[in-house]
Amino acid sequence: MASMMFTDCSSSTTSRLIHFNRRNGTFLLRRRVDQLRLQTTASGRGCNLSIRSSSSLTPAISADTKSEATAKVIDGKAVAKKIRDEITIEVSRMKESIGVVPGLAVILVGDRKDSATYVRNKKKACESVGIKSFEVRLSEDSSEEEVLKSVSGFNDDPCVHGILVQLPLPSHMDEQNILNAVSIEKDVDGFHPLNIGRLAMRGREPLFVPCTPKGCIELLHRYNIEIKGKRAVVIGRSNIVGMPAALLLQREDATVSIIHSRTKNPEEITREADIIISAVGVPNMVRGSWIKPGAVIIDVGINPVEDASAPRGYRLVGDICYEEACKVASAITPVPGGVGPMTIAMLLSNTLTSAKRIHNFQ
Amino acid sequence: MASMMFTDCSSSTTSRLIHFNRRNGTFLLRRRVDQLRLQTTASGRGCNLSIRSSSSLTPAISADTKSEATAKVIDGKAVAKKIRDEITIEVSRMKESIGVVPGLAVILVGDRKDSATYVRNKKKACESVGIKSFEVRLSEDSSEEEVLKSVSGFNDDPCVHGILVQLPLPSHMDEQNILNAVSIEKDVDGFHPLNIGRLAMRGREPLFVPCTPKGCIELLHRYNIEIKGKRAVVIGRSNIVGMPAALLLQREDATVSIIHSRTKNPEEITREADIIISAVGVPNMVRGSWIKPGAVIIDVGINPVEDASAPRGYRLVGDICYEEACKVASAITPVPGGVGPMTIAMLLSNTLTSAKRIHNFQ
Repeated sequence: MASMMFTDCSSSTTSRLIHFNRRNGTFLLRRRVDQLRLQTTASGRGCNLSIRSSSSLTPAISADTKSEATAKVIDGKAVAKKIRDEITIEVSRMKESIGVVPGLAVILVGDRKDSATYVRNKKKACESVGIKSFEVRLSEDSSEEEVLKSVSGFNDDPCVHGILVQLPLPSHMDEQNILNAVSIEKDVDGFHPLNIGRLAMRGREPLFVPCTPKGCIELLHRYNIEIKGKRAVVIGRSNIVGMPAALLLQREDATVSIIHSRTKNPEEITREADIIISAVGVPNMVRGSWIKPGAVIIDVGINPVEDASAPRGYRLVGDICYEEACKVASAITPVPGGVGPMTIAMLLSNTLTSAKRIHNFQ
Repeated sequence: MASMMFTDCSSSTTSRLIHFNRRNGTFLLRRRVDQLRLQTTASGRGCNLSIRSSSSLTPAISADTKSEATAKVIDGKAVAKKIRDEITIEVSRMKESIGVVPGLAVILVGDRKDSATYVRNKKKACESVGIKSFEVRLSEDSSEEEVLKSVSGFNDDPCVHGILVQLPLPSHMDEQNILNAVSIEKDVDGFHPLNIGRLAMRGREPLFVPCTPKGCIELLHRYNIEIKGKRAVVIGRSNIVGMPAALLLQREDATVSIIHSRTKNPEEITREADIIISAVGVPNMVRGSWIKPGAVIIDVGINPVEDASAPRGYRLVGDICYEEACKVASAITPVPGGVGPMTIAMLLSNTLTSAKRIHNFQ
């Protein structure tokens, strides 16, 4: 048995669990994340997936894959730590200069254990950098009006600079209606269509950039990886990762292609890429043979696969077959410890940005 | 001497003239349209451009280019006529059923001859399908407040279902401020960031799709050209054509790559494409050797090039070298008579859609 999940990419969404269907051997997507139409049987160590694909998987770069690992490891954990340290300094400077402490509010409805864990982690992260956190917990049977009232309260609260509504909401509520109620000036997730539109348009600036894609680009920047003029391939076109990641790469003058579930022979396209960002949620999908020698790989997928030797019976792998990719790529993010820690760092960054903008603090 | 222009892609923008600079032999972009960094000397008939490119232009498909033209001509003029006939019937049905006539308002500021021509053409097109047109003309030295007052008047006018502010506005006005004042429910150009954001997001629907890219996709639909699963390349990433065209192709499940001025070896990417939409404004840029045999070509560029034998001393050519492309592609839009006539047809279509939505008429 294998199951896959994404990290809490939206900062406010729950885990995007994608369960392996025992009966027909396919993966089912519970939420909005794209999936390439591959059948995988992920088990044990390595990248031993049986992948049905219309094209040959014969490694085009077999000479390279036989050699030892040479890729630089992009250490997301260390970068995220550094960013949190920078945020701590800025929060402190802001407090000392104008007496304002950035504040992040989270609205949690119902008793989902995973949601509660995410909210707790965000609270801890806020505390660690000096951002004040606010929380409203409502019971599962609350009315939509009660949630809207909480949103409205935080919209009006000058101590709150960012608002997250933890998803999923109970099924009797209109999610879009509630999310639309969040003031665009405090929508630190950056998922509002107005923000996405500004992200897509040249000459316009979004108020917030969605946290996970922002984290991906930040990793490239911090490792001085040039984006301009490069060919970039984004695997997955979800609203929360793939699509905004593609828009961000394009803003930085990459030539971008987006691969998704309807793409034929995706490996032919990835092989052209100088930069690959994968956010599809299929363990070890991208093999060494899919990668151009010297490419840079950003792996957003965090997929638990069965592993009897692991303490919990599973281990986490990315969308990229790390063992193989290491021998071909010039740089790669590990899973875990790559993009994962960046999401929450970017959420803190967006909250700080919001507070600075609202208080016109440079 | 050669100069290039786009059609009035935005429905409300002026001609996007891109003038040939006699001194240094380069093309200057007056407006937002992207340009690939090519130097061209377009003159006479055929596609005899001298193009500086980092890669060889040796035709990869010389066998095909030597053969006779085989591409089906995508007749935009005929399709646009058909759409206008369909709109005429719908406008008439709406009037008879609920007594409402769709209305389009145009605000023209200043005395630019080209802008006046565009406004006149739109008025004529409205009349031909039974849409009521409204017009406000303001002098060049009007204040921004006066323009905003006109916008506000049309926003509140129940007879008006679409509003266009003809661009460019005089330089003393804040264009973005004025455009943002147009009610999103009447923004028939579809350029509002909220619309673009919805266009980019899966599961969201824009109120309006920008006219020229909508026209491109409509041509593909009307000619039963499959988009799903195809590789599509968009040349140019302007807010008004390239970017929304890419988003539309992606919504229809194409695998999309966007080429722009920073793309290296664009011909390598176009050669992979089943569908090419070019909106870059460089005459005859895309040669036969850039095109995969059997590809479908949608040419948005309308570029006047010097031609002593033509009555006006120039003729119009597209971004695609038509003579060469005809021998390689399976279908192609001519210039003129391809995408051009579709833009205004889509503007009328958007106005009708708006009126139907406002009056809840199916």
